[in-house]
Amino acid sequence: MKKSENFSEWYNEVTEKANLSDKRYPVKGMNIWTPYGWRIMLNIDKIIREEMERTKHEEVCFPMLISEDQFAKEAEHIKGFGDDVYWVTHAGQNPLDVRLLLRPTSETAMYPIFALWVRSHVDLPFKTYQIVNVFRYETKQTRAFMRVREIHFFEAHTCHADFEDAERQIVEDLEIMDRLAKKLCLPYMNLRRPEWDKFAGAFYTIGVDTFMPSGRTLQIGGIHQYKENFAKPYNITYEDESGEHRFVHQTTYGMSERLVGALVAVHGDDLGLILPPEVAPYQVVIVPILAKGIQEKIVEECRKLETQLKNAGFRVVLDTREVRPGSKYFDWEIRGVPLRLELGMRDMDKGVVTFARRDSGERKEVGRENLISGVEEILKDIAENLEKSALELQKKNTTIVTTLEEASKASGIVKAGWCGEESCGLEIEESTEMKVLGTPMEKEEFSGQCLVCGKPTDIVAYLAKTY
Amino acid sequence: MKKSENFSEWYNEVTEKANLSDKRYPVKGMNIWTPYGWRIMLNIDKIIREEMERTKHEEVCFPMLISEDQFAKEAEHIKGFGDDVYWVTHAGQNPLDVRLLLRPTSETAMYPIFALWVRSHVDLPFKTYQIVNVFRYETKQTRAFMRVREIHFFEAHTCHADFEDAERQIVEDLEIMDRLAKKLCLPYMNLRRPEWDKFAGAFYTIGVDTFMPSGRTLQIGGIHQYKENFAKPYNITYEDESGEHRFVHQTTYGMSERLVGALVAVHGDDLGLILPPEVAPYQVVIVPILAKGIQEKIVEECRKLETQLKNAGFRVVLDTREVRPGSKYFDWEIRGVPLRLELGMRDMDKGVVTFARRDSGERKEVGRENLISGVEEILKDIAENLEKSALELQKKNTTIVTTLEEASKASGIVKAGWCGEESCGLEIEESTEMKVLGTPMEKEEFSGQCLVCGKPTDIVAYLAKTY
Repeated sequence: MKKSENFSEWYNEVTEKANLSDKRYPVKGMNIWTPYGWRIMLNIDKIIREEMERTKHEEVCFPMLISEDQFAKEAEHIKGFGDDVYWVTHAGQNPLDVRLLLRPTSETAMYPIFALWVRSHVDLPFKTYQIVNVFRYETKQTRAFMRVREIHFFEAHTCHADFEDAERQIVEDLEIMDRLAKKLCLPYMNLRRPEWDKFAGAFYTIGVDTFMPSGRTLQIGGIHQYKENFAKPYNITYEDESGEHRFVHQTTYGMSERLVGALVAVHGDDLGLILPPEVAPYQVVIVPILAKGIQEKIVEECRKLETQLKNAGFRVVLDTREVRPGSKYFDWEIRGVPLRLELGMRDMDKGVVTFARRDSGERKEVGRENLISGVEEILKDIAENLEKSALELQKKNTTIVTTLEEASKASGIVKAGWCGEESCGLEIEESTEMKVLGTPMEKEEFSGQCLVCGKPTDIVAYLAKTY
Repeated sequence: MKKSENFSEWYNEVTEKANLSDKRYPVKGMNIWTPYGWRIMLNIDKIIREEMERTKHEEVCFPMLISEDQFAKEAEHIKGFGDDVYWVTHAGQNPLDVRLLLRPTSETAMYPIFALWVRSHVDLPFKTYQIVNVFRYETKQTRAFMRVREIHFFEAHTCHADFEDAERQIVEDLEIMDRLAKKLCLPYMNLRRPEWDKFAGAFYTIGVDTFMPSGRTLQIGGIHQYKENFAKPYNITYEDESGEHRFVHQTTYGMSERLVGALVAVHGDDLGLILPPEVAPYQVVIVPILAKGIQEKIVEECRKLETQLKNAGFRVVLDTREVRPGSKYFDWEIRGVPLRLELGMRDMDKGVVTFARRDSGERKEVGRENLISGVEEILKDIAENLEKSALELQKKNTTIVTTLEEASKASGIVKAGWCGEESCGLEIEESTEMKVLGTPMEKEEFSGQCLVCGKPTDIVAYLAKTY
């Protein structure tokens, strides 16, 4: 498995060998979550739920089917999603009176009900979310976690009294994104998407993109300011303090199983996965190095280590299979367990445990009495190292260009001057075969010329090939 | 809200007033999980996951769509479910080559893949489960949690080397059911369903039924022995120790959001819900009894109570809204919070907190220093009392009859002699308008005559009207 030679093949292979998902399900683009992959996803969901609780979002669960008439209320939205939806037309032997569609996202399921739930200014801000499966009939090539037709999905939906309060929500969303990305050790960019690439129906969209070792970027989150765009067709109003009825302003924040795809792609190496300690199903694997005559004693001591670590709150697995230590190392390396502990006769004699890091391969002995603090420290260090390496890779693959020609030859993330006009943006996309990801949310000092029209500009656009 | 006068109306009203679910979603039979109801459901799921982990089942997540050809492989199964499924026939503007259906249950999604996953005797027993949404096009009247068209669903699927090992699994399932029911304070009956009422494709089915105050029973769980019935059409085989290929024996265990319906129906009273402490979103509500001049001091003391209880691991809410205590009592009673703590000036002076139980309405003062142990004890006592009351009601509504005429006039759970023949069983169902729920798994001493043919028999059948 050579990540650097053929990223795409490597990704498919590592996903399969680490047994994160099974692609053999007989409906195209719909993969099976195997136990190991699903545990990673649930660990991520757990972090998201904690963040939602911290920020006082309430969890709901809306039906999966949407009737055609509700779906059609917001014109831009149906234009954006209409070609990608699965239609339920029959139940049992009979055709349905009104066709139903599988939610591609839940605006049109939720908003007719929000119109009933939100009545007065005291109901605002109204902050809610759900974690569900959504469906998109992807026509592009599918790939585990990155592009699938049934998607494990998180979506937060909020209503606010005015634009400013909705903007405050977006600041909060960006903070949540940051805290989550930290735990996943993923660097990312918040880019305000150009007009032609907004979420269907949004006033503006922030794409959260991460750099993939293939040279492309992957969108791992989307934060959207809707203004009153949905409130009007769905008639979501509130009575303000003076008794007047006003439309709410709305935002949404979406993420998906692509987060798992990003973890695999960004952190993995030629030996397999490397999982961030915060979401690894097992943070520590213990491998007994058996020696004749004292096998039982070693295993017994390993069980003590296991218990001690579990009691300290770590997720631990003790591998007592009857195979060589080397093949155990191999198996757990593929699966990306961040830290391996080895315990053999020599370690026991010396009163130490041998620590082997999955990220750097580095080994060292740690005194038995420092086990807990040693594990804690090294997991923290692994997380920091994963993030640092990923950030370095992203930086190394970012270039600034000043001409269209340069841009066309560049790879990775390309930064360039752009006047902000749609026509120039589309021209950039066409001649570079890259997407205009947008402009950074955190203002960057820049002064240059538009790649196409040559006008002086202080707008820097990020360009990249994308998934 | 009079539970005893019109159970059905009471149920709908309490579900709505406690805000457990919203029925106004514009697709019939598909309700919205509101935050409060969803938290109860997630608390139940958490208990189920703990039980699954304890018994070494691994969680997976299979796709929601099943292709028509996979679905059709087991003849009995498609006969049983074929009329109840939603069909996806189009994606975007185009008809699909192969129609897809929304899973009504996941046998036909999983078993083609189990055939790939299970290879050898060392893979057995193979124990897996998922918690997902399933879809059934119900033609009977729908009712929140009890009969809906999108169902929040738990399903465990296991494969075994032989019939005996599968039988051991069923013993384990019954134990899991018992531990869960205990936490939900629900009495229940394990009844082996008659042949004509088995799960479609099963060798035998155990229905887990609970008695509802309406006089009907509600099935809250199903445990199924499949033998080789699915293994054969889906070709799920393993190589045994001698190198021979054999079909696996399979079992499944299903439960659903009906558990929430049962909680509502069995424990609630004329004031609203009464939630078992194990699954209540809030186990304790604290209501400050404000007195002029020392308002802040009382609220401050309530916050201390809140912190103390939260630190001890309880789920607590402090109600500081500016409304009369009475209307706070009213609100939290509807929502079924098992224990209310009141703290006013007099309580503070005396160094006590006033405890008010939701189940009995009983009030008593508990010394501030005994807060934690007091809450712990009383929650335990409430749980025991809920279970005891429910069991008494079930017993009071169980009668033994000896003639068809008696049976026809009886209500609730009716026990009667049955020769075991299908023709007599169907005759019983027709003339009593009740269902033959089946025969008890735990053998009961019985000697009597079959209600229809009069043959002496030691088989006792349970009859009831059902949901």
